[in-house]
Amino acid sequence: MAKDIEGPEQGEFSAKDYHDPPPAPLIDFEEWTKWSFYRAVIAEFIATLLFLYITVLTVIGYKRLTDVNLPTDQCDGVGVLGIAWAFGGMIFILVYCTAGISGGHINPAVTFGLFLARKVSLIRAVSYMVAQCLGAICGCGLVKGFQKSYYNRYGGGANELADGYSKGTGLGAEIIGTFVLVYTVFSATDPKRSARDSHVPVLAPLPIGFAVFMVHLATIPITGTGINPARSLGPAVIYNREKAWDDQWLFWVGPFIGAAIAAFYHQYILRAAAIKALRSFRSNA
Amino acid sequence: MAKDIEGPEQGEFSAKDYHDPPPAPLIDFEEWTKWSFYRAVIAEFIATLLFLYITVLTVIGYKRLTDVNLPTDQCDGVGVLGIAWAFGGMIFILVYCTAGISGGHINPAVTFGLFLARKVSLIRAVSYMVAQCLGAICGCGLVKGFQKSYYNRYGGGANELADGYSKGTGLGAEIIGTFVLVYTVFSATDPKRSARDSHVPVLAPLPIGFAVFMVHLATIPITGTGINPARSLGPAVIYNREKAWDDQWLFWVGPFIGAAIAAFYHQYILRAAAIKALRSFRSNA
Amino acid sequence: MAKDIEGPEQGEFSAKDYHDPPPAPLIDFEEWTKWSFYRAVIAEFIATLLFLYITVLTVIGYKRLTDVNLPTDQCDGVGVLGIAWAFGGMIFILVYCTAGISGGHINPAVTFGLFLARKVSLIRAVSYMVAQCLGAICGCGLVKGFQKSYYNRYGGGANELADGYSKGTGLGAEIIGTFVLVYTVFSATDPKRSARDSHVPVLAPLPIGFAVFMVHLATIPITGTGINPARSLGPAVIYNREKAWDDQWLFWVGPFIGAAIAAFYHQYILRAAAIKALRSFRSNA
Amino acid sequence: MAKDIEGPEQGEFSAKDYHDPPPAPLIDFEEWTKWSFYRAVIAEFIATLLFLYITVLTVIGYKRLTDVNLPTDQCDGVGVLGIAWAFGGMIFILVYCTAGISGGHINPAVTFGLFLARKVSLIRAVSYMVAQCLGAICGCGLVKGFQKSYYNRYGGGANELADGYSKGTGLGAEIIGTFVLVYTVFSATDPKRSARDSHVPVLAPLPIGFAVFMVHLATIPITGTGINPARSLGPAVIYNREKAWDDQWLFWVGPFIGAAIAAFYHQYILRAAAIKALRSFRSNA
Repeated sequence: MAKDIEGPEQGEFSAKDYHDPPPAPLIDFEEWTKWSFYRAVIAEFIATLLFLYITVLTVIGYKRLTDVNLPTDQCDGVGVLGIAWAFGGMIFILVYCTAGISGGHINPAVTFGLFLARKVSLIRAVSYMVAQCLGAICGCGLVKGFQKSYYNRYGGGANELADGYSKGTGLGAEIIGTFVLVYTVFSATDPKRSARDSHVPVLAPLPIGFAVFMVHLATIPITGTGINPARSLGPAVIYNREKAWDDQWLFWVGPFIGAAIAAFYHQYILRAAAIKALRSFRSNA
Repeated sequence: MAKDIEGPEQGEFSAKDYHDPPPAPLIDFEEWTKWSFYRAVIAEFIATLLFLYITVLTVIGYKRLTDVNLPTDQCDGVGVLGIAWAFGGMIFILVYCTAGISGGHINPAVTFGLFLARKVSLIRAVSYMVAQCLGAICGCGLVKGFQKSYYNRYGGGANELADGYSKGTGLGAEIIGTFVLVYTVFSATDPKRSARDSHVPVLAPLPIGFAVFMVHLATIPITGTGINPARSLGPAVIYNREKAWDDQWLFWVGPFIGAAIAAFYHQYILRAAAIKALRSFRSNA
Repeated sequence: MAKDIEGPEQGEFSAKDYHDPPPAPLIDFEEWTKWSFYRAVIAEFIATLLFLYITVLTVIGYKRLTDVNLPTDQCDGVGVLGIAWAFGGMIFILVYCTAGISGGHINPAVTFGLFLARKVSLIRAVSYMVAQCLGAICGCGLVKGFQKSYYNRYGGGANELADGYSKGTGLGAEIIGTFVLVYTVFSATDPKRSARDSHVPVLAPLPIGFAVFMVHLATIPITGTGINPARSLGPAVIYNREKAWDDQWLFWVGPFIGAAIAAFYHQYILRAAAIKALRSFRSNA
Repeated sequence: MAKDIEGPEQGEFSAKDYHDPPPAPLIDFEEWTKWSFYRAVIAEFIATLLFLYITVLTVIGYKRLTDVNLPTDQCDGVGVLGIAWAFGGMIFILVYCTAGISGGHINPAVTFGLFLARKVSLIRAVSYMVAQCLGAICGCGLVKGFQKSYYNRYGGGANELADGYSKGTGLGAEIIGTFVLVYTVFSATDPKRSARDSHVPVLAPLPIGFAVFMVHLATIPITGTGINPARSLGPAVIYNREKAWDDQWLFWVGPFIGAAIAAFYHQYILRAAAIKALRSFRSNA
């Protein structure tokens, strides 16, 4: 707050105090020759597996403890607040742990947004998405393996549109929710801001985790909250009921649109890429 | 804690270890010529829109899940604790994301306090406030667009004085609550402290978010907690019931008074502006 | 974790990488001539006032919303978890805001522990304690002024020993609880560790707030959790019932013993003052 | 996120920007001559004592407040979410406080994992484990001493497999839960990453505490969540019922396997020790 009166801001297009990495190439075959690439793909796989394992286990455990058909105290269980914490907290931990290895995406929508901004190559983006989806499926498989009857009885942690909401509402909720997340990711990794505000790189994983937490508080009653296509795909594959598959497109189209809008907002409005391009065009002409 | 025995403190008026920026001009037409000004106004608009969207959606979702007239488990829903987290957590995220762009106000009362302390120009302050109010209205509009019947049935997220409390109590609660928030903002952005205590600039967005969280825990039962005129205006415009409009003045007068007291406390007591002025007067005389 | 294999550790008594400030004088009249002293006392007063105002308001609001004699949903209200957050979160904010001004004690037991470790002078310690107690009384007075009938009906936020626990248990709970808090304070402000571990000074206010949060989770069912004599005195004065006064001694004796043990543990065990004194004695003999 | 395009990464096996400490010796008699060794053992003892004291007290207090046989409001009490916070929050505080003294293990499984990675000597590892177990027993003893009847009536905070889950499920839950924790510990203390990502050493205690919090959210309904053999042993010794002893092996075998997998994953996959060894072998041959 109140950092608006800053010297460097005055001539921001002339004297930069930061280093913008060059855009990632679309296809970079050299990546395939390095262990760091495979290591990153493995890290994304393991991280998404752990993400789904912990969160779906929390959802199933909560629904069992508060089942109105069982002689349980209905206030037992972690509550919707606890479920939202599970999703947000796991993202915080996993981004913290994998940021230095793979960049800490753990979410195909995040990977898509960063690909649009040319921060990862096409090959890396596709590899990450495949690893994330496989990890999510394995994570849900573990939960089902541990407690098959509970898993099927309590909905398998699948994302479905709640009764009383239209497809459009669900899609909108997914778009805006993913926008909040991917906007936070861009803010946290902006090389320009990193140079200026010391809190940005230090706290980074915390607001990203909180963004996931917040969106879950708001949209669990509507869609169960996807904002992560891998998180939605995993339970759909393992739970495998018609309703989960019918709504599945929502949880891919919505997050990808939201991520694209966030990438556009960050690159063209906040980083002023549009104006810079215009100036560059004028000065050349 | 226990940092009270410090060398530089001894002669604090003579040898400064920090840089005080000059007061912002009241009217600075040059701002209008820069993209960074418009970018900041857009960032405030989007941030306040997202703030109202997520928080009001959380409030409506909670009220629907715990409606005593529906066959629901009344312990479902995120609870008042979850609502307080939604408000505090969103402020944490949004201050983190916009601090480097606009200063991260997201609240006309914060803008007013920083204007009184001459940290933003009048033009910027007014522009921010307009952007914040428009953003809040659009954010509530989105929620209503998504679920019109629920929105109207569950109070629209509007701030209203609860039964059994007088206007004076509501006003007092808003004044002290805003004082807590704006005092935290001033502490987090004090250039003097930034130089000394390394935790101040690094953590900054976190205690600001927590201040909002805390005030909501305390005053949700009284006024629903405003401490942000834009947050109160948005639902009033979209929900548009008499009660919400009748109490609206509370949520503008209270926060502005609280912000002014916080600015006074910080500048005159903690930064000793009063004593410095007196000394300067004496040495000149 | 796993920082145990460190070079400097090998010869820790010979080559220090940190600066130990000299012990504070018992009585330092020069303090009285500086504005920074009065400013610190005012900051402690205001901080303790805000602490009691927010936390007691949260307690009263919670008890009103869950009153079994009223037609309310008993799951409304922030819950014991929300109350614990209110206490811990406010300490986080207030330590963050006042650390650079007064050292951020907000608690006579913390001031006592730091006085025993010779980190504050006697004059400063006594002035802080008086300011803290007055602030606590004013904070509770504000809550009572806002909602007198609720305040008296719902126990006034006073600390009392719960039914079924002996005085000894209550005293023990207060001693260990305060030990946890003051031990964290010493760890957070240790000049030796500050030099080595970069996370120590940066995060400092957060674990201190969490220590208060944790102790409240554990001992609210036993004593309502004092671990802060000013917090216990304020409601006792304003609520003014016999039971609150009868148990009052517990909330002064317990915290002061706990703080003394924490100071001893930190200075003699962790900082090895005992061994250093022994060596110094031997090398002189 | 999006840190994947980094210069130093390109030639990571040639030009290192970090310092790898040499592996700890298996047996280092010299440690026994230094106060810092005994101090570390004492710090582990006290930290584990406080950990069990606060968390078991929270569990007992929660069960008493929500006992369906008593005339209490069943929504009172901190809930399963509050219990999970108690475990995670205490680990956050205690790692913060003891990291500079003992490395902040507070958990035999963490000590075992760090021993496997050759970060602590055998003597130190065994001493820590003994201190942790004694601390856990004393912590539970304190809780029982304070409230003997409640302690025995409400299960003593002991870890037991819940009805309806097989031994294999319990073992799997403990293995994966401990993997999450120890993987986070390795990520937080990796000297390679510390050099590159500024947020790693600064935040360190927070994600470690969150890892404990998350695992509790997910597996409290299954095993009550051990992932810490000392935490499981303490209540078993003090509560001393057959069921707690029958399942005890689960809470030693599971965490040790999980810690070993995490050590293997970190050293051989993420740090590429396997590939380095292979290359070194080839270049020698």
